[in-house]
Amino acid sequence: MAFKSDIEIAREAKKRPIQEIGDKLGIPTEHLLPYGHDKAKVSQDFITSLEGKKDGKLILVTAINPTPAGEGKTTTTVGLGDGLNRIGKKAVICIREASLGPNFGMKGGAAGGGYAQVVPMEEMNLHFTGDFHAITSAHNLLSAMIDNHIYWGNELEIDARRVTWRRVMDMNDRALRDTVVNLGGVSNGFPRQTGFDITVASEVMAILCLSKNLDDLQERLGRIVVAYRRDKTPVYCRDIKADGAMTVLLKDAMQPNLVQTLENNPAFVHGGPFANIAHGCNSVIATKTALKLGEYVVTEAGFGADLGAEKFFDIKCRKAGLKPAAAVIVATVRAMKMNGGVAKADLNNENVDAVKKGCPNLGRHIANVKGFGVPVVVAINHFYSDTDAEVQAVKDYVAEQGSEAILCQHWAKGSEGTVDLANKVVQLAESGSANFAPLYPDDMPLFQKIETIAKRIYHADEVLADKSIRDQLKTWEEAGYGNLPVCMAKTQYSFTTDPNRRGAPTGHSVPVREVRLSAGAGFIVAICGEIMTMPGLPRTPAAETIRINDEGNVEGLF
Amino acid sequence: MAFKSDIEIAREAKKRPIQEIGDKLGIPTEHLLPYGHDKAKVSQDFITSLEGKKDGKLILVTAINPTPAGEGKTTTTVGLGDGLNRIGKKAVICIREASLGPNFGMKGGAAGGGYAQVVPMEEMNLHFTGDFHAITSAHNLLSAMIDNHIYWGNELEIDARRVTWRRVMDMNDRALRDTVVNLGGVSNGFPRQTGFDITVASEVMAILCLSKNLDDLQERLGRIVVAYRRDKTPVYCRDIKADGAMTVLLKDAMQPNLVQTLENNPAFVHGGPFANIAHGCNSVIATKTALKLGEYVVTEAGFGADLGAEKFFDIKCRKAGLKPAAAVIVATVRAMKMNGGVAKADLNNENVDAVKKGCPNLGRHIANVKGFGVPVVVAINHFYSDTDAEVQAVKDYVAEQGSEAILCQHWAKGSEGTVDLANKVVQLAESGSANFAPLYPDDMPLFQKIETIAKRIYHADEVLADKSIRDQLKTWEEAGYGNLPVCMAKTQYSFTTDPNRRGAPTGHSVPVREVRLSAGAGFIVAICGEIMTMPGLPRTPAAETIRINDEGNVEGLF
Repeated sequence: MAFKSDIEIAREAKKRPIQEIGDKLGIPTEHLLPYGHDKAKVSQDFITSLEGKKDGKLILVTAINPTPAGEGKTTTTVGLGDGLNRIGKKAVICIREASLGPNFGMKGGAAGGGYAQVVPMEEMNLHFTGDFHAITSAHNLLSAMIDNHIYWGNELEIDARRVTWRRVMDMNDRALRDTVVNLGGVSNGFPRQTGFDITVASEVMAILCLSKNLDDLQERLGRIVVAYRRDKTPVYCRDIKADGAMTVLLKDAMQPNLVQTLENNPAFVHGGPFANIAHGCNSVIATKTALKLGEYVVTEAGFGADLGAEKFFDIKCRKAGLKPAAAVIVATVRAMKMNGGVAKADLNNENVDAVKKGCPNLGRHIANVKGFGVPVVVAINHFYSDTDAEVQAVKDYVAEQGSEAILCQHWAKGSEGTVDLANKVVQLAESGSANFAPLYPDDMPLFQKIETIAKRIYHADEVLADKSIRDQLKTWEEAGYGNLPVCMAKTQYSFTTDPNRRGAPTGHSVPVREVRLSAGAGFIVAICGEIMTMPGLPRTPAAETIRINDEGNVEGLF
Repeated sequence: MAFKSDIEIAREAKKRPIQEIGDKLGIPTEHLLPYGHDKAKVSQDFITSLEGKKDGKLILVTAINPTPAGEGKTTTTVGLGDGLNRIGKKAVICIREASLGPNFGMKGGAAGGGYAQVVPMEEMNLHFTGDFHAITSAHNLLSAMIDNHIYWGNELEIDARRVTWRRVMDMNDRALRDTVVNLGGVSNGFPRQTGFDITVASEVMAILCLSKNLDDLQERLGRIVVAYRRDKTPVYCRDIKADGAMTVLLKDAMQPNLVQTLENNPAFVHGGPFANIAHGCNSVIATKTALKLGEYVVTEAGFGADLGAEKFFDIKCRKAGLKPAAAVIVATVRAMKMNGGVAKADLNNENVDAVKKGCPNLGRHIANVKGFGVPVVVAINHFYSDTDAEVQAVKDYVAEQGSEAILCQHWAKGSEGTVDLANKVVQLAESGSANFAPLYPDDMPLFQKIETIAKRIYHADEVLADKSIRDQLKTWEEAGYGNLPVCMAKTQYSFTTDPNRRGAPTGHSVPVREVRLSAGAGFIVAICGEIMTMPGLPRTPAAETIRINDEGNVEGLF
């Protein structure tokens, strides 16, 4: 069989002028700020004017643990959004923006796939509306002001060895991971060791995605801990007086971006924090705006449900006061087979036993999500190699868990392929059965929060952590940070900290190597494994073949 | 007297939707890519479609050597553009974009001033349409690919000590001037010393501003020399295979930005290369597009005429085949007084003798510009403290030089204040007296080009340069770079290399400290003095007071 590629399909899209998409949501022309003819930002004034309006229903799309087989979470998010519109519901999609840097290493990604995509694909993989560049500028302004403060006399008595605020660049550049700056003598400052992270790993990104409005944004930016003194007392961004100027740099980036699906339905694409050291969801402001404008809002969380949905519930929903009405867990027959022990090369062969053997991974995610009080439906994202018997095996398994699994064919057919899923989502959402509550209360001690997630979500027996880590958590509790939620940074490939352990393992330990305070974003990061915050380029970077071809199209980016 | 500030006037502007401004120039909606409602890019396809159309007349606005009194070159450029439109000519303004970083050190600048401004002022001082961010990305992608190439085996045998390509950031950050990168062990690369420049100093910026189209852009990017081998042979950007991806990153940035004056006349604001290590003019593509769309195009060059106009003529016009029809030299009574020895504090007192004493600075610029075969008119940018006798002294002096000086009041009155200037410009341009030729031929040896500029324009007696510099120039001539023009990097405050020597000195020497090859941009830089390519922040940066105030306006940026 010959399929069109995502980019071929995207280039054939019959895009409508973005104002028409805005019209569907009732956004007046003067409040829809165009970026070209197919992208726009929604003005802050319009967003403010929506206060007090009734909210639509929030649907989370999450997934099993990712496998090399691919699950299609974004594709299903887009497909469901189109499906809901097809059955007559006014639905809005909310997804994350892509990072520029990684596209020059490996090929860039579509937002969705097949006939369930958001466009314009090229722009979304390049500069888009400049949000990430604004975040880079705001982050690095603070960095420059810290070194400048030390240079001009260091009135705040910053310990130059304890500057925790690094610099960022939206580029895969391993050379910048570990650097010495301020070399060159008296006029350049005091040499010290530091480094760069990729922009999406910036706390500014997490803050932008969790802020309700510009005031909240500036408050949070001000709370960032940028360094410590010799007596280990913290120095804040507001002490450096950078919070106001950073807010000015971010004022346009705070406005959600409106684009469209291939079926001309509205999609907000806004924000993109790391899903490990941050919470991995699109912005609160986009989700809240969409809820005011649509009857249904379909959004997704990063990675599998153990990490992504947990953070969506315990960080984003808790902090923003969101109440999801239903959740969709995306699975594929192929991923079930991989969880059942089949190698990637053998995925095209029917193997019902392996499917059955892999299903407990899905089962645990279903139970976990239900544990948050959110009703669940499973979307089986159809691949052409799936057999009826394999699909039936998944459906049977899910039925045993008291939920329903629905075969979806949005990749090949667009919204026609998600009508059943859309109807089921509406049924669940309108049943009123949702009764959302986060996993743990705000006032639980920090270490106990980590244990609760590890035991209840990962089914681990214990959390291992050195005394220094437990002491650090105690110190933060004494400093008033004890009420923050915990952001787990763990491999996305397993319920354990070993990426190779598929299925639904129990009895494992979760070692916490390090804890970090994101005081502005408002969470404690618990790092359980290697976390890379500045990727490198591969031996032969995609950039080497990216170019504008004779037809004027970008080649090699996808 | 109480005056409104530039930002107050700018905020009161009755801006028209940018499409209306595009309509004035005949740009169809589908080819005008909006960025909000008051900024737009002109599509590459539309620009291509203009080929073969007749060009309008090109008017250069330049100035005497800048003094702390302020001359108002951009203000006069805008005022003249409005004045030409007022007298019924279809005129387009072409100016440079502002750099983001410096605005957080000292206060940001208006594009023009008083009632001769281009708006939206805030956006032009912040991210604008993202061009500079795109340049930063393209530059740093090349940097990352160079280190990545060395990391993966260094097939090109780059000498890591001789990597000349640094990184850039659009920020005043002295900590980054001199750095060590690639620290942290085997997985991060081979440590080496390098640094960051501010984005406007990037050769990518100079290239973007000199490129005719995307093909030319990619060609030039490919020609950048990024490093040398142990045998001192050059390694090019195209060897690293970064030129295609850099072009993709720059494809939107290559499209000129359209905004408007306070009087709703069209202005292209595009590109902003350093005026010392680069040529300091807005982009060739914007100027050429404007010439196809307007009867008159008013543009400006950086610094005073000795540097800015010389580079405009010898680099931009030579390379792009432009033929200016007339030049305006901006002077003020106050600046003449400073050139005549008056201190800044005494500028408000009438002093006709000092004016007369300062006039020879203006006189030399008049002669220099005429030497390029371009007819000259002097614009006296009026300040309220100027007396009639002082203004008359300037007029008399200029008349003695065979030119005319016209009093302009655009700052206070907008186009009403430049009607006389506009009429004079039209008279000069339509007289057909222009007979433009660059100062030196392409095939003159490089050192002789430097001498020609120093002697003919600066009235120096000699150029001093070590043997190593002369040898370097010879090596480049042998390598095929002998036909490039020279870009002088010298203080803008004097005809000499001493910033304190005002007036029209003679008999001085011009020492060349260093020469650099900008093989992609297509010029040799001759550095005569200290050139700072990464500024620092002052003790109390403007950023500390920049914020969004309760009315939602940006405060402290201006």
